[in-house]
Amino acid sequence: CFSSERTPNASYTNIIIMLMDDMGWGDLGVFGQPSKETPNLDAMAAQGILFPDFYTANPLCSPSRAALLTGRLPIRNGFYTTNGHARNAYTPQEIVGGISKDEILLPQMLKKKGYVSKIVGKWHLGHRPQYLPLENGFDEWFGAPNCHFGPYNNTVRPNIPVYNNSEMLGRYFEEFKIDKKTGESNLTQMYLEAGLDFISRQAEAKRPFFLYWAADATHYPVYASKRFLGKSQRGRYGDAVMELDYSVGQILTKLQDLGIENNTFVFFTSDNGAALMSGPNEGGSNGPFLCGKETTFEGGMREPAIAWWPGHIRGGTVSLQLANVMDLFTTSLALAGISPPGDRVLDGLDLTPVLFNHSHTLQSRPIFFYRGNELMAVRIGQYKAHFWTWSNSWEEFKQGVNFCPGQEVAGVTTHEQKEHTLQPIIFHLGRDPGEKYPLSVLSKEYQDALNWISTVVQKHKETLVPGMPQLNMCDMAVMNWAPAGCEKLGKCLKVPKSEPWKCEWPH
Amino acid sequence: CFSSERTPNASYTNIIIMLMDDMGWGDLGVFGQPSKETPNLDAMAAQGILFPDFYTANPLCSPSRAALLTGRLPIRNGFYTTNGHARNAYTPQEIVGGISKDEILLPQMLKKKGYVSKIVGKWHLGHRPQYLPLENGFDEWFGAPNCHFGPYNNTVRPNIPVYNNSEMLGRYFEEFKIDKKTGESNLTQMYLEAGLDFISRQAEAKRPFFLYWAADATHYPVYASKRFLGKSQRGRYGDAVMELDYSVGQILTKLQDLGIENNTFVFFTSDNGAALMSGPNEGGSNGPFLCGKETTFEGGMREPAIAWWPGHIRGGTVSLQLANVMDLFTTSLALAGISPPGDRVLDGLDLTPVLFNHSHTLQSRPIFFYRGNELMAVRIGQYKAHFWTWSNSWEEFKQGVNFCPGQEVAGVTTHEQKEHTLQPIIFHLGRDPGEKYPLSVLSKEYQDALNWISTVVQKHKETLVPGMPQLNMCDMAVMNWAPAGCEKLGKCLKVPKSEPWKCEWPH
Ligand SMILES: [Ca+2]
Ligand SMILES: [Ca+2]
Repeated sequence: CFSSERTPNASYTNIIIMLMDDMGWGDLGVFGQPSKETPNLDAMAAQGILFPDFYTANPLCSPSRAALLTGRLPIRNGFYTTNGHARNAYTPQEIVGGISKDEILLPQMLKKKGYVSKIVGKWHLGHRPQYLPLENGFDEWFGAPNCHFGPYNNTVRPNIPVYNNSEMLGRYFEEFKIDKKTGESNLTQMYLEAGLDFISRQAEAKRPFFLYWAADATHYPVYASKRFLGKSQRGRYGDAVMELDYSVGQILTKLQDLGIENNTFVFFTSDNGAALMSGPNEGGSNGPFLCGKETTFEGGMREPAIAWWPGHIRGGTVSLQLANVMDLFTTSLALAGISPPGDRVLDGLDLTPVLFNHSHTLQSRPIFFYRGNELMAVRIGQYKAHFWTWSNSWEEFKQGVNFCPGQEVAGVTTHEQKEHTLQPIIFHLGRDPGEKYPLSVLSKEYQDALNWISTVVQKHKETLVPGMPQLNMCDMAVMNWAPAGCEKLGKCLKVPKSEPWKCEWPH
Repeated sequence: CFSSERTPNASYTNIIIMLMDDMGWGDLGVFGQPSKETPNLDAMAAQGILFPDFYTANPLCSPSRAALLTGRLPIRNGFYTTNGHARNAYTPQEIVGGISKDEILLPQMLKKKGYVSKIVGKWHLGHRPQYLPLENGFDEWFGAPNCHFGPYNNTVRPNIPVYNNSEMLGRYFEEFKIDKKTGESNLTQMYLEAGLDFISRQAEAKRPFFLYWAADATHYPVYASKRFLGKSQRGRYGDAVMELDYSVGQILTKLQDLGIENNTFVFFTSDNGAALMSGPNEGGSNGPFLCGKETTFEGGMREPAIAWWPGHIRGGTVSLQLANVMDLFTTSLALAGISPPGDRVLDGLDLTPVLFNHSHTLQSRPIFFYRGNELMAVRIGQYKAHFWTWSNSWEEFKQGVNFCPGQEVAGVTTHEQKEHTLQPIIFHLGRDPGEKYPLSVLSKEYQDALNWISTVVQKHKETLVPGMPQLNMCDMAVMNWAPAGCEKLGKCLKVPKSEPWKCEWPH
């Protein structure tokens, strides 16, 4: 064990989770982006552990983020809908629901050991007052509850508020500019400053901290600050990646400047695969993987992932451990010396044995690929079985919405929800990371894989207790009309009459 | 200039070109292969320069190799056919032609400064006596003139001979075993030993050397030795890659052990894109690029490329210089201090300014994508214009031959030869390395790019003098029935009557 060779210079371990928004596995130089424009992330990998087999819990923002902070699949923590079969749901402004009070979030757990927690950037676990970060364990927040969609004219739909802690500071496109035409916005710089300031304050106070740095520049509409616009070989999306890469470098440098790098664990990943439907100027790359965001193919679920912790993690290594965002919950608790909650099923594993001995591999563990309320696929070892396939509907596809542009695998990237539960489509992801060559159902390899998979899936389904679905009801009255603090700013809008309805989810 | 900081410890520079066979851009960890099973190549990149924008001259073995050794496009050096429009041609056993005596090969040039040259592995520039390596400038050879197809029963078609210098040692599948069922063969080990032995001998004799190390384990049928079989997460193809990666490591280590690493320039690349039609067990990965071998999409033409030269090349750097295999001819001459031949057009550039100053970029230079006798596409800067598109014929496609499995870009991966000369399909490869989003012909960007491209292409076409096509005629009588040395071995076969015909090229 490498860690035992070093004496930590503090009795606690700070935790930083950097979560990108719609950044793809293939967007980092170290994962094969041809332009090689992520020198800071590539250096982070060279000093840390790269996880090429790291997954999100859902191919969409809200459920993915709920899973990260609870250590539980969205089907358990309620971040799904029952309004339509296998439909992706999230938290638009009209959503009534949010993160349930029955869930325990990572910052709530970390409080047991005196951690101060801050979220910088996008929350996305519900925007009504009771669902906001400071009501759910975070001590500080600078950012927004929703995506930076807009601009709206504040009549039918309000612009998204930006919060400092529990009061709004202004709204996107108003006080917080995003020029959709030029792509210019200083938001990433603001998020960077907020992160650096938090780190410095906690280091000075010698308090253990958890920073959840959730910058969203690579989510449509993609933005970057003036200094980075036009700098990438890849267009505007690449500019945003370069600014985020720069920011990662600044944060790691800050830790070193403060001398706390040896007691700060940093993990970098993304919330879902690149949004291929946004096109090459506003969408990223999923490298060799199939399709992207919204789908349960590898392109939707496989994420870039790097762990960094000088003095504890041996640099320049690669772990082929199957892992996912929910492991960050459990691993963070282990690093903080806190026992995980014993009253609920956790889907995350403690990765510390892998971190401290990269050749160590945890027991064979399945990765479940849900879309809404349906188990679409599962990965076990190198095998991935698809029980349901679906990209998007023919209707939508014919209108030009394409989740798999330039990719079409017959019978796999289907435009109807196609059931394969009796005879799943199975891929060997080692030989075929792109999910293009289904195993022959007549082969012994298929039968052996199916036997293995069936046992694991049966056990999972038998014991699964789905949480109360939070993403079923919508209501224009719950939107961000009058967030706390709006009075001081004179930014309160008139709340319309409440008329709730069952939300419709097209994907 | 970094090189001037060091004093070379010898007055000459050895040259090693390692050319893989059908290995794809995406097969190296450093280029994003998820299994990360190429530690030696990744380390070579970390100590050298990575070229993500490096190309071959043709998406098929023979013309690519002819271009590398002559510094000239196949359309100039004669490695093409006029039997069919835009058809790929190579050197099967029945080919009558080979490398023309009018061409000057790299080892012939290097002789001017006393270099000893050896080719290890696949030749593929013609197998009739006058076309073999020792007749074309090489001093030594261990390997074969053709691909390791077979086994044949030596009646209709002979097994491919393996040569030591100008005499055969035996034949593939006979004295040189390849077990197609298990994939076991010791050939890569034999090629490794031959390379190491040559290096040691020249180092001891203090003679400048050129080693052209052309191991072919990743060409169908893919093989590896027992020690590597089953070791990869990627199946048999991955086993072969691991053995080649190991061999690269052994060669670099040998240079260091001999203390000649500071005066040996090593370049690693591949002859064409991964052969996707061979399926996941016997074909590699082209990473995020479109299609593969046989096509002029990026997957057929973009190659992994690493330059290594301790003490002269600054390690861990990336050059975005557009470069290709023909540059290796010109660059090698520059390293040897030999003026390039002045009596012919060379397509290769001297890359030494880039090698010694990786931020240096040579003048904007076009990359031409030929398929047989047709200029299919051109890249200039980040733009690539397709004048003709074609994957393969409908007939063949319907029989299951697929050059672009799981990839279909409407109007681009066409199954007929489709002309776009009046309105080329243009991609921006920075934003869209996968060639999935054609620029709108109505955009200013399209018009500007087209103007730029048209000027360059017009100049190229106006001054182009095609060489005499070498790959037009076939004849069963010219096959490897009775190679030199067969008498001693009792391995001469009866030569059938000569009945030449115009070769047919399906692709
Ligand atoms: Ca997202
Ligand atoms: Ca080849």
